[in-house]
Amino acid sequence: MTVDPDKRTFESQGFGHSLDWELPAALLIIDFVRGFTKPDVFGGFNTRSAALNTIAVLDRFRQLAWPVAFTRIVYANDSSDANIFSQKVPSVLSLTEDNPDSHVIDELKPLDGELVVCKTAPSAFFGTSLLTFLTQKGIKTIAIAGATTSGCVRASVVDAMSFGFKPIVITDCVGDRVESAHVSSLRDMGMKYADLATSQDFFERLHHS
Amino acid sequence: MTVDPDKRTFESQGFGHSLDWELPAALLIIDFVRGFTKPDVFGGFNTRSAALNTIAVLDRFRQLAWPVAFTRIVYANDSSDANIFSQKVPSVLSLTEDNPDSHVIDELKPLDGELVVCKTAPSAFFGTSLLTFLTQKGIKTIAIAGATTSGCVRASVVDAMSFGFKPIVITDCVGDRVESAHVSSLRDMGMKYADLATSQDFFERLHHS
Amino acid sequence: MTVDPDKRTFESQGFGHSLDWELPAALLIIDFVRGFTKPDVFGGFNTRSAALNTIAVLDRFRQLAWPVAFTRIVYANDSSDANIFSQKVPSVLSLTEDNPDSHVIDELKPLDGELVVCKTAPSAFFGTSLLTFLTQKGIKTIAIAGATTSGCVRASVVDAMSFGFKPIVITDCVGDRVESAHVSSLRDMGMKYADLATSQDFFERLHHS
Amino acid sequence: MTVDPDKRTFESQGFGHSLDWELPAALLIIDFVRGFTKPDVFGGFNTRSAALNTIAVLDRFRQLAWPVAFTRIVYANDSSDANIFSQKVPSVLSLTEDNPDSHVIDELKPLDGELVVCKTAPSAFFGTSLLTFLTQKGIKTIAIAGATTSGCVRASVVDAMSFGFKPIVITDCVGDRVESAHVSSLRDMGMKYADLATSQDFFERLHHS
Repeated sequence: MTVDPDKRTFESQGFGHSLDWELPAALLIIDFVRGFTKPDVFGGFNTRSAALNTIAVLDRFRQLAWPVAFTRIVYANDSSDANIFSQKVPSVLSLTEDNPDSHVIDELKPLDGELVVCKTAPSAFFGTSLLTFLTQKGIKTIAIAGATTSGCVRASVVDAMSFGFKPIVITDCVGDRVESAHVSSLRDMGMKYADLATSQDFFERLHHS
Repeated sequence: MTVDPDKRTFESQGFGHSLDWELPAALLIIDFVRGFTKPDVFGGFNTRSAALNTIAVLDRFRQLAWPVAFTRIVYANDSSDANIFSQKVPSVLSLTEDNPDSHVIDELKPLDGELVVCKTAPSAFFGTSLLTFLTQKGIKTIAIAGATTSGCVRASVVDAMSFGFKPIVITDCVGDRVESAHVSSLRDMGMKYADLATSQDFFERLHHS
Repeated sequence: MTVDPDKRTFESQGFGHSLDWELPAALLIIDFVRGFTKPDVFGGFNTRSAALNTIAVLDRFRQLAWPVAFTRIVYANDSSDANIFSQKVPSVLSLTEDNPDSHVIDELKPLDGELVVCKTAPSAFFGTSLLTFLTQKGIKTIAIAGATTSGCVRASVVDAMSFGFKPIVITDCVGDRVESAHVSSLRDMGMKYADLATSQDFFERLHHS
Repeated sequence: MTVDPDKRTFESQGFGHSLDWELPAALLIIDFVRGFTKPDVFGGFNTRSAALNTIAVLDRFRQLAWPVAFTRIVYANDSSDANIFSQKVPSVLSLTEDNPDSHVIDELKPLDGELVVCKTAPSAFFGTSLLTFLTQKGIKTIAIAGATTSGCVRASVVDAMSFGFKPIVITDCVGDRVESAHVSSLRDMGMKYADLATSQDFFERLHHS
């Protein structure tokens, strides 16, 4: 990676320190539903590959019996829960329970005991029971995968951090429909809100901590 | 502005529609405190000019007697409220009540009856009474000024939108310490969460609606 | 009603003032599902009659085309969202989507465009999109019906008030499984959090305001 | 205590199970400020004795170096944060930073590192950083002292439970201005939201768990 002069600005002001990762940890998989892995629906750029990269991470969390939570965007059939998000992006109202594009991809199919929350806002925490699921288990660190990096992932990272959890963005497991948004949000999150780690580094570092 | 090919991706998927601006409206001024207008503290790029551009907008809201709210980042003197944000950016812990850099700049000094909330997270809504202030007044639209565009402004815009308010980002009144972060967050917000308007356009459009 | 000496204590300290009811208003119907109208499931005392008294209020709101929202308690089939509430009251885990006792009674069946939120906590606001539904519409006053008075109604009233809405508890439309809990919570709410009105008084007062 | 027939109704429906207390635990002291221990301000019945009973509990938490948090009701000098609560109870607006009645009593004076949050709503969690303070530490159980039992204590217990924490109400350390409200809220909380324990039982049970 070449040197980013903007990073120097951030670092000179004290941004970008690392978090101390503490167990217990949970895995949060955001909006890896069919529609977000298809370039002609809500996906694009690296959303499909990021979703497939998440399979191994999910397997590992399951082997460890660590908590796993999923999110889906789901609006009511009658659009009674239409909101400002759906004014900016009317096409999201198509993501109803009956629309296969609103369901988690088969490769990451949730198992019994894993939380699946439906939401109508970017953050995985907004209007869902995710927070309670994590708090009850004393979770301190959240590994975050999902789509899109600049959208629901970033919004969830900001909330996770604000609520007192340490977010680790798994860089090969988050995807966006456009590369520029992916790159700039990864940089912003690493400077201000979260640690960034590849899936390989994530488990290596956990192993040694 | 040149054509952004990424915008076409967003637009082909249904992003970037305009909101219908409804009154009543409030003005939210985020973290325009001394430290965020100084390049050697937490400011840089256009944070100072954006703060100064906000003077006229604030005046207009005051003439209209429309609600105004300010935020400041303020940590406790004993750092008892240190959090994940202050782990990523330890220098924010210096923003205590006694530190002049934590106070709203003189040019925008809050008046009696204007809400000033202190926060320790990016969003103006997190752990504050801002939501209640707005809800009580039946506010539907929030004009947003402040710093930084990619930080507390963006986090507040996401929350404003999630909570059911229409956020209008006043583009000449939001500033960031680095230009790239400013530009990419403006684009993302305009596509997904908020309408963008210059301060001049904001009042012209309100006048005709 | 005889004079309650405790009320005098409250009133001498400044409690129990009336709210100014402002439009727009919404109707919130809390947990009037089958199981809460049956004395051998989660109902008792006046929950059934309170639910039936709500029919006329609902009709009136529909005639006025004012917003209506319903809540249901619904846990996941795999109990992945079990929580502290379900530790205190394990029987609530039986209220899954498939259990007819979790569905709104036929007499109050929600129509298209009316919000129905599922929750796993007492408050109608907790982990739901209710707040956003109300905020978007600029709602200022919420008429509240439902069960139980001392449980989900009271928790929702506290949240409604905290979030900046004026709660009006419709006294003949809220029910509890035991009378003592009903009476003491009505008193507490009227002193601290909400106005109390019969359904007849509610519409009469609205008519004259 | 004589048998309460209403309790049988609760228990026949599955209410009133005990929580499994898990460490780490925190102590939450709600509104034990001067004004709430004075019968002519906002206190009465047992608020003063409950506050004094809390001294020993606080000492013990400090010896154990377990987290402690306090709440105070504090409104802005200009009443810019007046809300629905202050419409029902206008006298609460007198609790400004400058009013000695808004300060924690000397006997329970907070130490450095203990969180003190200011609030304008009943729940200790509403618009404060309390949740983040607890989540960051992986807190699972919250011992709750404060005033009033039927007001801010009960509202905080409901939120604590909803957010995934196990609330233990320390029965000799919570007080109310009227006995009837105290008694009925203790009963309701024990049935639905929290475990009840005297301060002596609390430490004995913790010792053996």
